[in-house]
Amino acid sequence: MQAAQHLKFKHIGIDTRQEHVIFMRRDCAVCRAEGFEALTRVLVSAGQRSVLATVHVVDSAILAPGEAGLSNHASQALGLVPGQAIAVTHAPTLDSLSLVRAKIFGHRLDADAFKDIIADIARGYYTDMHTAAFLAACAGGRMNEQETTDLTRAMVLAGEVIDWGQSPIADKHCVGGLPGNRTTPIVVAIVAAAGLMMPKTSSRAITSPAGTADVMETLTRVDLDMATMRRVVEREGGCFVWGGALALSPADDFLIRVERPLDLDSDAQLVASILSKKLAAGATHVVLDIPVGPSAKVRSQEDAEYLEALMQHVAQAHGLTLRILRTLGAEPVGRGVGPALEARDVLAVLQGHKDAPQDLRARALLLAGELLELCAQAPDGAGYQRAQTLLDEGNAWRKFQAICAAQGGLREPGVAAIQETIVSPSAGFIAEIDNRQLSRIAKLAGAPATAVAGIDLHVRRGERIAKGAPLFTIHADAPGVLAYAKDYQASHPAIDITREA
Amino acid sequence: MQAAQHLKFKHIGIDTRQEHVIFMRRDCAVCRAEGFEALTRVLVSAGQRSVLATVHVVDSAILAPGEAGLSNHASQALGLVPGQAIAVTHAPTLDSLSLVRAKIFGHRLDADAFKDIIADIARGYYTDMHTAAFLAACAGGRMNEQETTDLTRAMVLAGEVIDWGQSPIADKHCVGGLPGNRTTPIVVAIVAAAGLMMPKTSSRAITSPAGTADVMETLTRVDLDMATMRRVVEREGGCFVWGGALALSPADDFLIRVERPLDLDSDAQLVASILSKKLAAGATHVVLDIPVGPSAKVRSQEDAEYLEALMQHVAQAHGLTLRILRTLGAEPVGRGVGPALEARDVLAVLQGHKDAPQDLRARALLLAGELLELCAQAPDGAGYQRAQTLLDEGNAWRKFQAICAAQGGLREPGVAAIQETIVSPSAGFIAEIDNRQLSRIAKLAGAPATAVAGIDLHVRRGERIAKGAPLFTIHADAPGVLAYAKDYQASHPAIDITREA
Repeated sequence: MQAAQHLKFKHIGIDTRQEHVIFMRRDCAVCRAEGFEALTRVLVSAGQRSVLATVHVVDSAILAPGEAGLSNHASQALGLVPGQAIAVTHAPTLDSLSLVRAKIFGHRLDADAFKDIIADIARGYYTDMHTAAFLAACAGGRMNEQETTDLTRAMVLAGEVIDWGQSPIADKHCVGGLPGNRTTPIVVAIVAAAGLMMPKTSSRAITSPAGTADVMETLTRVDLDMATMRRVVEREGGCFVWGGALALSPADDFLIRVERPLDLDSDAQLVASILSKKLAAGATHVVLDIPVGPSAKVRSQEDAEYLEALMQHVAQAHGLTLRILRTLGAEPVGRGVGPALEARDVLAVLQGHKDAPQDLRARALLLAGELLELCAQAPDGAGYQRAQTLLDEGNAWRKFQAICAAQGGLREPGVAAIQETIVSPSAGFIAEIDNRQLSRIAKLAGAPATAVAGIDLHVRRGERIAKGAPLFTIHADAPGVLAYAKDYQASHPAIDITREA
Repeated sequence: MQAAQHLKFKHIGIDTRQEHVIFMRRDCAVCRAEGFEALTRVLVSAGQRSVLATVHVVDSAILAPGEAGLSNHASQALGLVPGQAIAVTHAPTLDSLSLVRAKIFGHRLDADAFKDIIADIARGYYTDMHTAAFLAACAGGRMNEQETTDLTRAMVLAGEVIDWGQSPIADKHCVGGLPGNRTTPIVVAIVAAAGLMMPKTSSRAITSPAGTADVMETLTRVDLDMATMRRVVEREGGCFVWGGALALSPADDFLIRVERPLDLDSDAQLVASILSKKLAAGATHVVLDIPVGPSAKVRSQEDAEYLEALMQHVAQAHGLTLRILRTLGAEPVGRGVGPALEARDVLAVLQGHKDAPQDLRARALLLAGELLELCAQAPDGAGYQRAQTLLDEGNAWRKFQAICAAQGGLREPGVAAIQETIVSPSAGFIAEIDNRQLSRIAKLAGAPATAVAGIDLHVRRGERIAKGAPLFTIHADAPGVLAYAKDYQASHPAIDITREA
């Protein structure tokens, strides 16, 4: 188990995102000595660094004898240069998988069990298959309050925890499911303009066409490291940072990577994901927005009550002051759905444009007002008015610009090369807008991976519409994805029109 | 969406087993036009054939502009030759995933739902991640009798169903968990020697160190096609065929591929897997052996009762005559654990060697006797005696040789290059043998992928043992895997020795 295990790294430039793959010749000494075959999991080491990877066996001349290739993410994680020696050994036995199996078979897990599972996930030791099994086992009401609390703590402990050395530290979160509901950048600008500290870290989209980090990335740099983030927050009181760059609750990113293609987001995972990020980011006072509607993430008042109780239980167990707002979630917020289109709406509200989406503005003021009250910056009942003043007098817009400047500069969001407008097939009233179908169309058009892709919505519920009048415009950057989005829209129209009598 | 989608196939010889991967240049017209990025799922077509594959994006010169590579299994499935044109489009929307999500969230699924899910799995449309989520959602008592019946039917309908045009068609199955319990080849030989038809199809190992197909493959060809299997059975009355080559319940192989690394085998999946294979193979009369023991697959009498009731319910719903035997499952059967080592034990019993494992012989006679009774070839209570006569007079061994000859010839199982014996650290009695730990050691040594790998057990429960006397010998074909097996054994000794007073 010594010299024979070393192979020379060859750059073969294969991108498999965060799934680490090692390419090894079938006839190489390491494969033969160790009994490696395709899909074996191995530990690849170079110096002090190591990653787990899946073996793909090569039967051709793309590798010379003694060479091995690695997927891009894996070679970056190891900091490899071509020709560098890498050592390959069997993956360590993953003892935590027996805990996953216990959960699958309906047993309760304790705090140590979640710590072991989450630590292995955060190290990248689980394949997507293992993570999928864990997520499915924790969904569907199979996690009680204690387990959810323990899962949350395990997720916090698996990464960095920021201590800001003061209180309150404000934060907010929206449970999501409403396309275009991009209040966060506006709320941060208002709250920081009021003099509070709100070091906002956001995630990318899980199952939606855009997360706040995706939207803010179209406007400024969001992948700040910890030192830069501290500098921005100490200077401006707020920031817009992608949490994934900070190793805050790092397991969450691995979980999200699997939740996204499975389109799976359970209550326990939702609570643990949200609260672990807030706790790791050092938040002490949090306002949580739960939109409820037939096609929002939370569909009924009963579901919302259950989720609220779970959230409050876990928040209290971790010493977090949490205020939950249940809001209407019947239709999209603003007009844009997709990173760049939502950024455009955010700028319109901050800049006080006459045609800025009023629903987005009102929601942001509501949340900012609650947060100002929760952090004792406004008497109860006076938060909304205070927030409105900070927005209307331009303080919030100036603060937004200052934060973006501190993060590396404010830029213009892009515009899609291809735009195609879907028109109403009949005259009538807009009866319902299906958030899920609309999100699906935006995602098929390329959002969030393609920042300029998405939907620009031209109608609101209850409005009268003429036959042939525009319903929404699909934005895409390639004809293939546009066609794909239109194919889906043809059978899932997303907007239900009641004909006039 | 026409000409630009075509790429020229280049053979790059990358083995990813049944996980289909397409390698495409980042700058290729198809990637850009269609918006493909790493891990996108795509439909790859050549002529009338198509497969779903996962995109790996290539940033290097291993592909020239206009070329695409495919993993070996995918290019074989498409029947590609180098330079052949392939078309790449977005994968069809997998509507059945919403049914998987419903199951994850605790809803009951109906027959149509299982049909849709299983059809997509059998087509290879699910990634391992999707399949893992489905399996986890169906485990832990979350499937009722009706769902298990419907799942079984869906699995039968997704593939071929053989009609032998006569009755009875005998079959047997052992629920497993006992290392070395390789009665099937002996039972088939006895039952076919009695003149019954027993067209045995077997699977490879799921979580054990060997399945019957793995064992028989060390003795003869088992990957027969349907026509060859019919010819063998019509001539000899029996056969030993790997079911995976026949498209009988083809979804089962995809499920097993994920169950194996997850080490996950739920009651509902177990019943559906076993009975769908039997029904698709045309069986009418089946004897099922359920070993019960603290480290067998079924650990308690209550678990066995539950499983038996579920098996009988599903069998009756499908018109199958089923007799279930509950047997002792406290320790391994025979001496060998692993394909070639178990084959050696089978031959010893069939050939009537003096030192043949008596426990393996007795179990095979019991099951063969029950099957002879169930198929009215022996009066109740006289089956064991009839089976013993057929074995002891050499009819079974002659039938076994004749079947192997018809399948392409009988060969000798191989022997491992590396053998290392683990000895007793103290004098005493063999108190317990942990089937799971023993299986784990055999698997770490390379079984079943390495046919000669496994364990040769030298002791039985209750025996007295001297300090330094051999407990078992690990067989391996590479020092790396031997070291890995020994590492595990050092902390999980598998055999518990009570010191003499």
